[in-house]
Amino acid sequence: MIYPKIPLAQTVIQLCKAKGIQHIVISPGSRNAPLTIGFTNDSYFTCYSIVDERCAAFFALGIAQQINKSTAVVCTSGSALLNYYPAVAEAFYSNIPLVVLSADRPKHLIGIGDGQTINQKNVFENHILYSANLKLDLKDEKNIPGNEALPMMKNLEDKLERLLGLQKDIQTFNEEAINTAINFSNLKKGPVHINIPFDEPLYDMVDKLIVSPKATTPVIKEKTIENHVILECLEDWNAASKKMILVGTNQPHTIDEKWLDELIEDDSVIVFTETTSNLHDKSFFPSIDQIIAPLSEEEKKQLQPDILLTFGGLIVSKKIKQLLRKYQPKQHWHIDEKEANDTFFCLSNHIETTPNTFFEAFLPKITHYVKSDFKANWTAVKQKRLLKHKEYSKQVPFSDFKVFDKIFKAIPNQYILQIGNSSAIRYSQLFSINKTLDVFCNRGTSGIDGSTSTAIGCAVANTKPTIFVTGDLSFLYDSNALWNNYIPVNFRIIVINNQGGGIFRILPGHKNTENFSTYFETNHNLSARHLSEMHGFEYATISNEVDLETTLQSFFAKSTAPKLLEIFTPKNFNDEALIDYFKFIS
Amino acid sequence: MIYPKIPLAQTVIQLCKAKGIQHIVISPGSRNAPLTIGFTNDSYFTCYSIVDERCAAFFALGIAQQINKSTAVVCTSGSALLNYYPAVAEAFYSNIPLVVLSADRPKHLIGIGDGQTINQKNVFENHILYSANLKLDLKDEKNIPGNEALPMMKNLEDKLERLLGLQKDIQTFNEEAINTAINFSNLKKGPVHINIPFDEPLYDMVDKLIVSPKATTPVIKEKTIENHVILECLEDWNAASKKMILVGTNQPHTIDEKWLDELIEDDSVIVFTETTSNLHDKSFFPSIDQIIAPLSEEEKKQLQPDILLTFGGLIVSKKIKQLLRKYQPKQHWHIDEKEANDTFFCLSNHIETTPNTFFEAFLPKITHYVKSDFKANWTAVKQKRLLKHKEYSKQVPFSDFKVFDKIFKAIPNQYILQIGNSSAIRYSQLFSINKTLDVFCNRGTSGIDGSTSTAIGCAVANTKPTIFVTGDLSFLYDSNALWNNYIPVNFRIIVINNQGGGIFRILPGHKNTENFSTYFETNHNLSARHLSEMHGFEYATISNEVDLETTLQSFFAKSTAPKLLEIFTPKNFNDEALIDYFKFIS
Repeated sequence: MIYPKIPLAQTVIQLCKAKGIQHIVISPGSRNAPLTIGFTNDSYFTCYSIVDERCAAFFALGIAQQINKSTAVVCTSGSALLNYYPAVAEAFYSNIPLVVLSADRPKHLIGIGDGQTINQKNVFENHILYSANLKLDLKDEKNIPGNEALPMMKNLEDKLERLLGLQKDIQTFNEEAINTAINFSNLKKGPVHINIPFDEPLYDMVDKLIVSPKATTPVIKEKTIENHVILECLEDWNAASKKMILVGTNQPHTIDEKWLDELIEDDSVIVFTETTSNLHDKSFFPSIDQIIAPLSEEEKKQLQPDILLTFGGLIVSKKIKQLLRKYQPKQHWHIDEKEANDTFFCLSNHIETTPNTFFEAFLPKITHYVKSDFKANWTAVKQKRLLKHKEYSKQVPFSDFKVFDKIFKAIPNQYILQIGNSSAIRYSQLFSINKTLDVFCNRGTSGIDGSTSTAIGCAVANTKPTIFVTGDLSFLYDSNALWNNYIPVNFRIIVINNQGGGIFRILPGHKNTENFSTYFETNHNLSARHLSEMHGFEYATISNEVDLETTLQSFFAKSTAPKLLEIFTPKNFNDEALIDYFKFIS
Repeated sequence: MIYPKIPLAQTVIQLCKAKGIQHIVISPGSRNAPLTIGFTNDSYFTCYSIVDERCAAFFALGIAQQINKSTAVVCTSGSALLNYYPAVAEAFYSNIPLVVLSADRPKHLIGIGDGQTINQKNVFENHILYSANLKLDLKDEKNIPGNEALPMMKNLEDKLERLLGLQKDIQTFNEEAINTAINFSNLKKGPVHINIPFDEPLYDMVDKLIVSPKATTPVIKEKTIENHVILECLEDWNAASKKMILVGTNQPHTIDEKWLDELIEDDSVIVFTETTSNLHDKSFFPSIDQIIAPLSEEEKKQLQPDILLTFGGLIVSKKIKQLLRKYQPKQHWHIDEKEANDTFFCLSNHIETTPNTFFEAFLPKITHYVKSDFKANWTAVKQKRLLKHKEYSKQVPFSDFKVFDKIFKAIPNQYILQIGNSSAIRYSQLFSINKTLDVFCNRGTSGIDGSTSTAIGCAVANTKPTIFVTGDLSFLYDSNALWNNYIPVNFRIIVINNQGGGIFRILPGHKNTENFSTYFETNHNLSARHLSEMHGFEYATISNEVDLETTLQSFFAKSTAPKLLEIFTPKNFNDEALIDYFKFIS
């Protein structure tokens, strides 16, 4: 077995292994050579090489999002590290365990004008669970902090003993810092940063480990819900005739079916599910905007719940946020082990546990359902909208709306669906999604900066096939995502190309002026064709409804290369089709 | 004239105008709509629309680097801002005045789970001259900090007066913060961040300004050098028989010719100039590595200067850094208005002024030159090396070495030469560069992340034509740079494609193993062809010496589109050619 000679590199790698970090995404560099050597020579690790650090971090995030285990990115010193930041922030707000391992210069070589050297310490301060700033291994006297006396010590034995003692202190400090960082990532789910100074020589190897760092894990007491909390909840719940459950981003298969079955029996409860909630039942309300967009103020007031119960991550629908901020529930309960956002400015109860644990303690205690027409009334509205929706879908000419409708219908069972930000995720909320799909979207920061890379990470981490549906700007933004040697042949991308940020046409800007099309819509004539050819994707393009049907039929068939389908839609009609839709269904 | 309705947007824009910020690089978004509306409707500003914020910031940096005036980037809230960070760090270490204007949500909408919302306050903490965190305009009571009493005030007039007073305080705070930030950027040269919260509605416009912010500029006393400093310098200077001047990154045309003429008269002075120093004289020593790489320890000791005088920015040559750290000068003086890096761990004198000012005060006071054979000896070494260099250049087969040699000879007079990081800038140091060229390279962080965007910004800001010479990894990393509607037709790119990070082959890694080629060299088979076609570049490719000569001859001729020349070099031979070169010239 080959190991890097530097003890600190060995320590980092051994602790990553002990704590079950298996996937390591490495960007090339020299300062990080000790880590690269160590990770790639140990078959425990699955390593990936990705040059652009922005893509590398989103790719790792895509893996971590799927396996729900800490995944590491490794980079050299300097601005390389800063390119991780968009993915670090996404991980922070999406609670994804991402471990950033950055190589750094020794302290005495920072701030003196050396190349590829920045101030890496705590650089992600605003969006990180924990930053471990490791200390350099002692090799000689020059890096001993505050030990100016040492060189003067004449007795060699004393000197050696002192040095060994200091090295032991440093080793202990580093081990503790690494343990803490990875524990935070593993247990609190989110990004951590371990900054690791290495001195030259960087490429030396040895065939034996010279450190045996100890992996420590804190004993976590499972949080129990106190009985009086449940009783108070029960009292309020039983007294309320209008209860809304709203579920944002939520990992698939995390809520026991039986609790959902209980909830849907209750006539006073309506369950609003977003596309990213990965919850399905025919009595749920999945297309939130479809329900509420056409509502009058009077009707919105009728929808106002007594109790709003939320779980899952961030909410996509702006319309439900606006509605619940204006017509606030009397109580807002949020269930989450870690945190509760006061999204509607009326959070009254943070239930600090998982939804399953809460439901298990709570639902069996409900002895009778409150008599209510809340659910019945809104189910009627839903049915009406669905009919109108079907009718409109049939008649709407070729457009973004039509295309999204057809795509979501065409995706085969058991796919993982990754959706790009901005228009793609918003359109997805209007359609019913095949319930065998697992749906993901980077809603932590809702950026357009790394969706393709995330989708590719997801595809790599899964045996199920992944389809990524995205708009053109988001796709072009993350074009380097395709510079990736690990893309499985069953990976699929659909780019809906409306030649710019079509979503801006729906906002109250000044359309059809040059300023609008340049600075808001950012019109372009680019296509994904060249990128597909460059990176070995099978490419197909269509721009009308007839081709759409036939192409979608064969698009998911087995292939020898990943495939990209680019659909050009009419940019001057798309906004009209969407605005007309909301008029039509009201 | 059209203005955004929001007073704070007007304030920011008016102050940018008053302080001479002319170039505004805008990335699309909704939260920043008030700024976009304001900047693009005022013909004082030259606006650019660039979608990928990483490229946008490097593009702005390229403009600012050329005009040496503050240049602004404007983005929406969320992770958009984080994509600026690589360029912000480069600006920080390269002293380039870059003004980041980020739109943000109002404080009460941060941290509650809204989309595109992160913690933007002081997010560039480690690498910024100043962060201005502006406050929201008062529109109603909800955003009045610490004024819980206000809603209870019954008297409407009192209430109004109180509100107006508070708004005035906020306006004053914001004006001061904006002034301070832009003053820092203008005067101290470097990046600043102004974070600007806006509440909806964002798209409203008015036809009159409702604020008239006051631009303030501190009176800066020019730093004078005290006479005793000059006298002390003189004494040491006159006593030293071995003096080395070493010039790193340095803006063209900033040092008066007459001072250089004086320096070259002195036999005890040798002037080492890097490619990025933009200083030329036949008696200078421009190819530092060529001189020192073959030196024995004994010869290195002979080169050790008594006094080392440095000016300019960061030093590229690792070899001169190693040499001067080992054989330290007795004194190291650095001339710079702002800062002095202790690059060789022996900095003894920071002369806080410009080189011109120092030379004007210092050089005329030198009454006699010290007798010395320092310059003569090293000039003899230089001549010997140059002969060998010529000989080697003739005989070396087609390789990176050959290609760089030919390229630097072929660039026509009066071009601006932008060089990519890593191998490109290192090779450039081996060849003499046409002295009519202005040379630039992002040596602040020495990253490969934004060189193409910077070069394009440079091309846009100049009437002179720009040529960008880069390696393949750096070019591919910044591939979105070409997604830019402002590229002039006289812009030229040469990509030396050695199918990976060829520079790693020269480092002491383990070549020709799979691990090496995957994780260090990061081999690929990509070409710049598809990107050229996608973005409307005329594309040419060559892979042998004969084609190289003929293609380079026509490459700089007038064209109707910008051009990209891709030169494929033999990756398994390039390192050999370079190692042989250093053997040959010794």
